[in-house]
Amino acid sequence: MSHAASALPKLGVLGGMGPLATVDFMHKVIDATPAHRDQEHIPVIVHSVPQIPDRSTAFLSGSDAPWDYLLAGLRVLETAGADVIAIPCNTAHLWHGRLAALAHVPVLHIGKAACNAIDRRIDHVRRVGLLATSATLKARIYHNELERAGIEAVMPCASSQETLVMAGINAVKAGQLEQGRMLLRGAAEALADRQVDALLLACTEIPVALAGLTFGAPVLDATDMLARECVAWWQRALAYSPSITHTHE
Amino acid sequence: MSHAASALPKLGVLGGMGPLATVDFMHKVIDATPAHRDQEHIPVIVHSVPQIPDRSTAFLSGSDAPWDYLLAGLRVLETAGADVIAIPCNTAHLWHGRLAALAHVPVLHIGKAACNAIDRRIDHVRRVGLLATSATLKARIYHNELERAGIEAVMPCASSQETLVMAGINAVKAGQLEQGRMLLRGAAEALADRQVDALLLACTEIPVALAGLTFGAPVLDATDMLARECVAWWQRALAYSPSITHTHE
Repeated sequence: MSHAASALPKLGVLGGMGPLATVDFMHKVIDATPAHRDQEHIPVIVHSVPQIPDRSTAFLSGSDAPWDYLLAGLRVLETAGADVIAIPCNTAHLWHGRLAALAHVPVLHIGKAACNAIDRRIDHVRRVGLLATSATLKARIYHNELERAGIEAVMPCASSQETLVMAGINAVKAGQLEQGRMLLRGAAEALADRQVDALLLACTEIPVALAGLTFGAPVLDATDMLARECVAWWQRALAYSPSITHTHE
Repeated sequence: MSHAASALPKLGVLGGMGPLATVDFMHKVIDATPAHRDQEHIPVIVHSVPQIPDRSTAFLSGSDAPWDYLLAGLRVLETAGADVIAIPCNTAHLWHGRLAALAHVPVLHIGKAACNAIDRRIDHVRRVGLLATSATLKARIYHNELERAGIEAVMPCASSQETLVMAGINAVKAGQLEQGRMLLRGAAEALADRQVDALLLACTEIPVALAGLTFGAPVLDATDMLARECVAWWQRALAYSPSITHTHE
């Protein structure tokens, strides 16, 4: 077997940003996988090392501190046999270009995955409400992709961004889910009222807090869209080696 | 940093048996960790490769097929820097002794973790209802530990074991959570009626299905107890190097 197991294409998850968001992403990969038993699920290696400095704080203060941690995590995943990398942290995508350039395997982009999915899923989207960290907004991680698709990004006002969005994200990271839910719900409701065609949850802590809630506009969850991109990758990989999951029953 | 990040003690999770049980375990590790921000959570490397042959089927048919997969996964985790290994699959503990003998780092035992915790948590436990795979029961993974603690294991009758417990576990593995919940709930209720002092959920799929339910006896979740054992390991590791999580804020 060892040959067969090591020959399996594997998904690498560069996670821990935060740890709960990584678990949420893994759950969404499982949910999105058409499997009827364990052996049909995607093989995954996860690097969840949350000691990496906060991405938002670093970017907003002009620090590159997360970089070495991201690169070290990427190398661990490559050595462990990952054939494609997903990063369930939107803000970490500030470093996506540099990581992708040094990686020996493809590194998926959560913003591209989300914008491609919007294109496919919702007709006539013109305006989306963007819920994300201040760093993700400032670095225009989503803006450029959305603009390319002809979609306008609507953001919370500066004060809501600070007192509802960032405070809510930090509450989730602190394990205060109810508090995070209350704050982020307020931000989502306010955005939904601004004639948007959809809300885009573009920070991986946000869907953890808003799970199960509905708003005046459809909700698009970037974590889920990245998970679906991973499943699509797996299905393509299987198409090239269809016997993989059925060899060792 | 790279030095600091690679010097962190890391938990290795030999998972994917099944993938949902691994996610449930990771969630329980996070919940059990006294953390107020990302950086205070345990660094984890997860090997979730569900193509490993079914442990119950293998054991009951006298096959050693899972062994090579388990050993390969262990080696990946060791190479990735894991300092201790947890296996969120009770039945896989049939191979625990051989894995632990070849491992370069400690491999925790879910049954020992659970039985130690029962000792600490509940006074005067004399009988526990044991919900586990047929292989876990037949191999006496829990019986020996329980007997050492002077606790009697009460099991479902042979027909419930097949039609409720095993069918329920396989439903969870097939993604049919509601079906699994209904079947396993029936098994748990029947056991709770047999004058047990507690129910012990000793298959990692079972707490996934029974989440939020209560029964006529307190529920002890082996997954949760293994998670707490991991947190205790992490706290001991930190005690030896208290600056670890606070160096790189």
